[in-house]
Amino acid sequence: MIEGVAFDAYGTLYDVYSVEQKCEENYPGNGAAISRMWRQKQLEYSWLRTLMGRYENFWRVTQDALRYTLADIGLKADAAVLDEIMETYLKLEMYPEVIEAFALLGSRKKVILTNGNLEMIEPLVERSGLAAHLDGCLSADEVGLFKTRPEVYGLAIEHMGLEKEQVLFISSNGWDVAGAKSFGFTVGWINRAGKPAEELGVRADYDVPNLLALAQAVAGS
Amino acid sequence: MIEGVAFDAYGTLYDVYSVEQKCEENYPGNGAAISRMWRQKQLEYSWLRTLMGRYENFWRVTQDALRYTLADIGLKADAAVLDEIMETYLKLEMYPEVIEAFALLGSRKKVILTNGNLEMIEPLVERSGLAAHLDGCLSADEVGLFKTRPEVYGLAIEHMGLEKEQVLFISSNGWDVAGAKSFGFTVGWINRAGKPAEELGVRADYDVPNLLALAQAVAGS
Repeated sequence: MIEGVAFDAYGTLYDVYSVEQKCEENYPGNGAAISRMWRQKQLEYSWLRTLMGRYENFWRVTQDALRYTLADIGLKADAAVLDEIMETYLKLEMYPEVIEAFALLGSRKKVILTNGNLEMIEPLVERSGLAAHLDGCLSADEVGLFKTRPEVYGLAIEHMGLEKEQVLFISSNGWDVAGAKSFGFTVGWINRAGKPAEELGVRADYDVPNLLALAQAVAGS
Repeated sequence: MIEGVAFDAYGTLYDVYSVEQKCEENYPGNGAAISRMWRQKQLEYSWLRTLMGRYENFWRVTQDALRYTLADIGLKADAAVLDEIMETYLKLEMYPEVIEAFALLGSRKKVILTNGNLEMIEPLVERSGLAAHLDGCLSADEVGLFKTRPEVYGLAIEHMGLEKEQVLFISSNGWDVAGAKSFGFTVGWINRAGKPAEELGVRADYDVPNLLALAQAVAGS
């Protein structure tokens, strides 16, 4: 049934909390608080800008979210430090089970479907060695809207030439899972922290603790 | 210049953190954590549902957010407790300076422009004694979308028959301030907590600590 797989990137394939260390280096004692609020604001800004009709790409949104976060916590931010912290987004750690999970998913087409603009996702995919295993990166930047707008999820359909339910969309983000399921994908939730499902009126088809467990469930189905 | 005033309700005229006490009664030691996460999830769900095209009214979104919050914190929630906590939304405390600020704003038309559906905002406005001072309540429910979609802010223009910049929109929520300014209103930010401005590419016209300070600034302008 599953003919293609579309992966969210940030939080799903790549650990966004691996920025914490860089934040901690620059602001001792504040690394955890910065990385947590930064991620929250990054998402909020992506949602709000889309609702307002004021799209800017995800790199810019991520920068803005960092600037707000440092100001809110009361930390001084010069341009060099901001740049240094932002660059960690090009070097995020990939989760350890990714390559093995990809292998289990076999010859199905595999794409990344991300809020990130290509200028920020492609260097990461290259650097982490995932590029050779992928059939491409699709970015929300192409439609000038962020998830959970259906137009963003639609990019995978367009690119793969499949029906919605033939695509397994995989994300670790509960809100992204809801958006993708609402769109019509078959959806796997990488629920690393064992969270309850978001109360948005839809549920994932698979609720698993990591990518390997999902790949095994799909391979055995 | 300012011919009409549109007020956000929750957080601006009414203190949403006054639900904390009821949460604390039912879940001792967790009141603050519940009310903080509940508010955050309520907003997230309003944004995400609008983006996904799965509108449900704000009462339902608020209920869903409460259910998620209790599950996430690991607290048991029976229907009677949920109902009891939800009802505090019909009895929120009004900020103490509201009536005096309204008086200072003089004979200008005054409306509430809220995400809340009329079934939840009207009983609150009645009970708090504000109804007699208002020219009406406008709800996002009318357009089936939540802030920061321009269609929601547009309700005030339609209702008051004024130009965008002739309307002073007042909110304590930084994200709502950004949405309203992006729409084209003159905007006053009731920045009770002295927060930095959200990094969304627009700024409030007034940044003041409470409604009285804003009314004084406008009266003297």
